[in-house]
Amino acid sequence: MSVAPFASAEIIAVGSELLALGRVDTNSGVITARLAALGIDVVARSAVGDQVAHLEMAVRTAVRRADLVVLTGGLGPTDDDLTRQAVAAALGRRMYEDPEPLARIAARFANRGLPMPEINRRQAMVIDGAVLIDNPHGTAPGQWIDLETGAVAMLPGPPREMSPMLDALVSGVLGARAGAARTFTRGLKVAGRSESHVETVLQPLYPAWRSGTPSIDATILAALGRIEVHLFARSASARAAEQVLEAAIAAAAAALGPCVYTTANETLEQVAGGLLRVNGWRVAVAESCTGGLLGASLTEVPGSSAWVEGGVIVYSNGLKTALADVPAALIVAHGAVSDAVARAMAAGARGRCATEVGIGITGVAGPDGGTDDKPVGTVFVAVHTPHMAACRHARFVGDRTVVRQQSVSAALDMIRLALLGHDPAEPAR
Amino acid sequence: MSVAPFASAEIIAVGSELLALGRVDTNSGVITARLAALGIDVVARSAVGDQVAHLEMAVRTAVRRADLVVLTGGLGPTDDDLTRQAVAAALGRRMYEDPEPLARIAARFANRGLPMPEINRRQAMVIDGAVLIDNPHGTAPGQWIDLETGAVAMLPGPPREMSPMLDALVSGVLGARAGAARTFTRGLKVAGRSESHVETVLQPLYPAWRSGTPSIDATILAALGRIEVHLFARSASARAAEQVLEAAIAAAAAALGPCVYTTANETLEQVAGGLLRVNGWRVAVAESCTGGLLGASLTEVPGSSAWVEGGVIVYSNGLKTALADVPAALIVAHGAVSDAVARAMAAGARGRCATEVGIGITGVAGPDGGTDDKPVGTVFVAVHTPHMAACRHARFVGDRTVVRQQSVSAALDMIRLALLGHDPAEPAR
Repeated sequence: MSVAPFASAEIIAVGSELLALGRVDTNSGVITARLAALGIDVVARSAVGDQVAHLEMAVRTAVRRADLVVLTGGLGPTDDDLTRQAVAAALGRRMYEDPEPLARIAARFANRGLPMPEINRRQAMVIDGAVLIDNPHGTAPGQWIDLETGAVAMLPGPPREMSPMLDALVSGVLGARAGAARTFTRGLKVAGRSESHVETVLQPLYPAWRSGTPSIDATILAALGRIEVHLFARSASARAAEQVLEAAIAAAAAALGPCVYTTANETLEQVAGGLLRVNGWRVAVAESCTGGLLGASLTEVPGSSAWVEGGVIVYSNGLKTALADVPAALIVAHGAVSDAVARAMAAGARGRCATEVGIGITGVAGPDGGTDDKPVGTVFVAVHTPHMAACRHARFVGDRTVVRQQSVSAALDMIRLALLGHDPAEPAR
Repeated sequence: MSVAPFASAEIIAVGSELLALGRVDTNSGVITARLAALGIDVVARSAVGDQVAHLEMAVRTAVRRADLVVLTGGLGPTDDDLTRQAVAAALGRRMYEDPEPLARIAARFANRGLPMPEINRRQAMVIDGAVLIDNPHGTAPGQWIDLETGAVAMLPGPPREMSPMLDALVSGVLGARAGAARTFTRGLKVAGRSESHVETVLQPLYPAWRSGTPSIDATILAALGRIEVHLFARSASARAAEQVLEAAIAAAAAALGPCVYTTANETLEQVAGGLLRVNGWRVAVAESCTGGLLGASLTEVPGSSAWVEGGVIVYSNGLKTALADVPAALIVAHGAVSDAVARAMAAGARGRCATEVGIGITGVAGPDGGTDDKPVGTVFVAVHTPHMAACRHARFVGDRTVVRQQSVSAALDMIRLALLGHDPAEPAR
């Protein structure tokens, strides 16, 4: 039995259903995250259908590639459940029927007043040398097999069965045999800037990060007007890792400036809401092209009734006048999608709802309705506070969903900038 | 050179970044879908980091498991880009520098007024016997290698480079060498019922589906108040497959009844909107716990200005009275989360916006605000039309996001049922 620490892992998700169109294997992400926190790097991940020869090959390859091999799925009672058989074949080990899990499986059925179906005997087959992992939420026990080169863990596929069993491994054998080094992470998030802008600003910092002790890796993820920067450091010393990460985050935030809305993993909705709450201000919305999406986003945050009053969805021009007090003549003069109408909507929302902050959004979300002058993606977002009024004229690129989401991100960012005393009319540099 | 049709495929996504926390490999899903349409089954899928030995093992395993091996990623110019080297090693073939792609790469840089960096020479290395696949959007050409047992395709990782190259293969060699059998698919969607209800109703139909010619496989997917049933049939005859699928969908729809909202892959938003449009009716909303999410969902559908007038987000009790004409005394008497207030909100939305249909939603989305009487998940959804008024009292299980999404699904379903002349107060059986 090896007692060397696990440095690398491979995850094999078992089941033809995982290969079907549109299916996503969520277990692998969960396992990756738990292992990363222990400093165990996932070096390969695969999904394999219910063919015993394919699965056996996958296990043979995996034990050569990684210290720890985690399989999920294929432990059920049917002919399609081949994980036990494939692992035994790949490792060249026999299986035997273990009376202890068999009794437990039979008892689970007895508790529900049912006889145990004969096919469930299969779930009591144990590979020579395996230690069983208790399954509190299902019939199939997991199995743990120590190898010269590392170990193989077999867990069931249903997430509610798999998760507590993984927890037990993490607080047990995996925790005990994780290496001294762990991966630590910090991040920051940016609004209103492009991924390439963020990349360009951070690039000069990379050499110092890479040559630090421990060194820092950076990943940039972009989504709908919000950019996330993730920094990773691997070290046996939590203090050393946290120090370099803290310094790196501070340097990145200084380089990027006020477009950084959090270094504490908050959402833009939480940040805008928190600023409103601290100010004792309430917000009201008047939404056209977003149709309520800004209101929905603001109220995603638990407790948001402390800063969200409500607002109006003024999809039709008639309602812009009836519910947001936009003069009909203004719409005729400037068009419904215009700086003037967005500002009037923000003012109208504030007035109707008696709030300190009002937001107006009007735009062309597409796919139809664009003109040469105001193509699809043209959006005006206005904010009014007791101290200022501003409007941002954006030209978002993307489909209807992208344009609407970007409009919401811009509105939230403008609330944030207004409350911080920056000019919300332009995205923060 | 083999000219046998490809029946099975394996996809290998290359790059350590794919194994990082929170990363999703989108290419594999796209490739799976394109291959499925050609009748080529994906039997295994993996993501492998940038280690040449690991990648070589993955390729060796894959060529034994599947007729066609598709790799994406690792064709860039850096030291981390190891796909060419690993495939050559796994297949025991040499590489050579091909002057033709080299000239094309150099020309791409010259077009931008740049000299070609020396490291980009690597992208002109071609495996013996490979046919190059043109890359219209990047420097790295793809490579196609015919084997005795099938073929290996190497494509770049960036989706906008990979996709058109995959298209070229599908309309070229893959289309020509796909088997005669294709996978055909039909589906239906259900609102207001549980996954297990749908499963129980359909179970008696499975034996006939399985024994048909061609046989039919079924998958049930559940998400936030909407259930999808997907049926698959594999056949060389489009007519035979479409006939059995058509009959199966009709049988499933008949067994499930009016809870089926589409057999044509429409969204619930499209179905509710389509019924409003056909009726010549417009809808207005008054939203409390959903904060605008129903309005946002209704207006997700392009062209929804033809049936959505707008509405009010009445998150505070004051606005319920001020903007939706809910008598303050009614709120005091019944509480803001009540049948009476939901009905008054629906009526108020209708009246204020002068529409035929009004919706009111009020509830406890959580995590706070629940009481013994009205626990978290308690939601009242009311619909008013010129002909009827109804209110559904739901107790949704899940977090804030789930409760809000389920509330929206219920509201859309109630619009649908009301316009079809069913009772919207209870989920359709």
